[in-house]
Amino acid sequence: MSRLALSCVVEPGDLRLRTRLRQHTPEELWASVAGSSSVDAWARRAAVLDLAPILAAADAVGARFLVPGDDEWPERVEDLDRGEPVQESVGAPLGLWVRGAGDLGRLVGDAVGIVGSRASTAYGDRTATEMAADLVTLGATVVSGGAFGIDAAAHRGALAAEGPTVAVLAGGLDDFYPRAHTALLQQVADAGVLVSEAPPGQPPSRRRFLTRNRLIAALSAGVVIVEANSRSGARNTATWATSIGRHVMAVPGPVSSAASYTPHRLIREGEATLVTCAADIREMVAPMGSELALHHSQPRLLDLLDAAESAVYEALPSRGSRDTGDLALRAGLSLPATLIALEGLRTRQLVAVAANGGWMLGAVQDRPVRSPQQEAGGGDG
Amino acid sequence: MSRLALSCVVEPGDLRLRTRLRQHTPEELWASVAGSSSVDAWARRAAVLDLAPILAAADAVGARFLVPGDDEWPERVEDLDRGEPVQESVGAPLGLWVRGAGDLGRLVGDAVGIVGSRASTAYGDRTATEMAADLVTLGATVVSGGAFGIDAAAHRGALAAEGPTVAVLAGGLDDFYPRAHTALLQQVADAGVLVSEAPPGQPPSRRRFLTRNRLIAALSAGVVIVEANSRSGARNTATWATSIGRHVMAVPGPVSSAASYTPHRLIREGEATLVTCAADIREMVAPMGSELALHHSQPRLLDLLDAAESAVYEALPSRGSRDTGDLALRAGLSLPATLIALEGLRTRQLVAVAANGGWMLGAVQDRPVRSPQQEAGGGDG
Repeated sequence: MSRLALSCVVEPGDLRLRTRLRQHTPEELWASVAGSSSVDAWARRAAVLDLAPILAAADAVGARFLVPGDDEWPERVEDLDRGEPVQESVGAPLGLWVRGAGDLGRLVGDAVGIVGSRASTAYGDRTATEMAADLVTLGATVVSGGAFGIDAAAHRGALAAEGPTVAVLAGGLDDFYPRAHTALLQQVADAGVLVSEAPPGQPPSRRRFLTRNRLIAALSAGVVIVEANSRSGARNTATWATSIGRHVMAVPGPVSSAASYTPHRLIREGEATLVTCAADIREMVAPMGSELALHHSQPRLLDLLDAAESAVYEALPSRGSRDTGDLALRAGLSLPATLIALEGLRTRQLVAVAANGGWMLGAVQDRPVRSPQQEAGGGDG
Repeated sequence: MSRLALSCVVEPGDLRLRTRLRQHTPEELWASVAGSSSVDAWARRAAVLDLAPILAAADAVGARFLVPGDDEWPERVEDLDRGEPVQESVGAPLGLWVRGAGDLGRLVGDAVGIVGSRASTAYGDRTATEMAADLVTLGATVVSGGAFGIDAAAHRGALAAEGPTVAVLAGGLDDFYPRAHTALLQQVADAGVLVSEAPPGQPPSRRRFLTRNRLIAALSAGVVIVEANSRSGARNTATWATSIGRHVMAVPGPVSSAASYTPHRLIREGEATLVTCAADIREMVAPMGSELALHHSQPRLLDLLDAAESAVYEALPSRGSRDTGDLALRAGLSLPATLIALEGLRTRQLVAVAANGGWMLGAVQDRPVRSPQQEAGGGDG
């Protein structure tokens, strides 16, 4: 209950929360906030907090509150605790409000985020719908934000293929925003789940739309930007995805289309991989294998590698070295993709440069790692 | 005259030619071929070669034959002598037939190749025309192959902006191919030049179209693929461009368009940079600076670096090391672009990995290098 209460007084993604939770358990933190005579915002809100109407509102719409350790908890959102702040937000959610028939943890085991402009074109809508339907057919769950434009097209594609979809909302789940999407969001709840960090009764806000974007990224193995003009929030989702090591993908379009500005920019600058269809996306985002799930309580360094890094790591010889071209060939990757993977491995000291200029196994090898929370708090999460 | 005669008996891009020219001067090689009693194809053709009608046909249309050392000779085509074979072709041309008002060497000092499908879409044609017109306005020359579709759209865009353009043809310059482009190719000759490796009287052939593509790549600082289906020859031009270190760029389009298949593939696999407009292209392909021209008789290792490699090399500290992110920031490049540049520098030993994992100046530093021809033949270019 401490996490639920805290989530009612702390704004999602508050920078200070992660710091405090590295020093204290949620129970200690709530006791300190609730018992404080300070005039800071958390204490003032805690002093007037009445959980009864919030829980009643949740009950009325069948919403449940998930916390770490629950069966349905999507553990991958905790990657947010390892990311850098984006626009002064950071950190995993204290808990998640969920409404709908699906099991969130199971649904996002193999999930792809599809996001983009509210001001989408017919081309963008059609592409989002087709990609979502094809992804669902291939066994994936489609995660989006329930907004007008690309988000709605993605949810509709998933629903059309009778597959699960997850809508991450910025406000409380007792109300549907945007109102015009009431029927759509009800369908999403029936086929999958609605998710929010905000308790029932909380309206969406600009800040909450941005912190919501980090959940879309964190709940997905990769995020696809279908269309986004130069000011779209989809850019923010891409930044979040990059900051926590999710694959960022983008859909090309006509060069004359302003709605394709951000996808083109992301691809051009190497921040996103160009994808044209669901098969391209699956190539980037392999389904979560059972081997990952097995090690879950004790994440290992190799489990944190992406598909390209794993392929390159596997291609290293157990003794001696191998040159970049040879590694690319064996890993089945392009040279740039191999170089990016090598850089990721090099910074983790999993590979090193050999005396002959080739690449060899590095100083660090497949050792268990501890998350920052474990290191700082001594807990066992 | 030995080069001209040789070019009449040797197919463009013949693998054996480069090998023989590393051991012999063109004069020695021609003497050996012409004096041979062998029955090989070169000797048989040399035995029946009559240069008079070829020279007369050239005279009749005002075509001239350029060889290395001529004022108008485009020295950058000699980069082909450093590339790897592509589809069993390789090597710089023995000479180039040129027809038209322009100075080829000067025109290609700042040239961009724009190529693509014969089976282009209205979107592709419009994009090629606009990019070509804008490039010419920015001071560049547009190089293409004079074919239907994207090639023609590119030439037309350049001509519409009253700028120079170069058409590289697969057959002799005494005839225009395709015939339907007679008026267009005449306009190209008036505003720029027509170029061919084949002597007058030689028809285009499938093989010559492929070896022609290597000249489009070699004459340009970078090549833009506007549209190309999965079987287009534009893919071949991109391969040539990569093999000799030219920038490869590609234009995105609707994901449903088969004509955008190859551009999307090239971008996705990291073989091409996405470009949406002439400004994007100029960002990749900086105009040839005067500093390169100055060192021309004695190429130095640093002169062979591309823009990104130079920027990264400049960003290295003179003492100590710098990490990849810092280098990317200072070089003004994306992380993938920086990593690709570092790999290029590392293989040339211009950078090395420091003990702390950062990058430092390598064992090799700005030493003059000799081209393979110079090394083998002892000549002084």
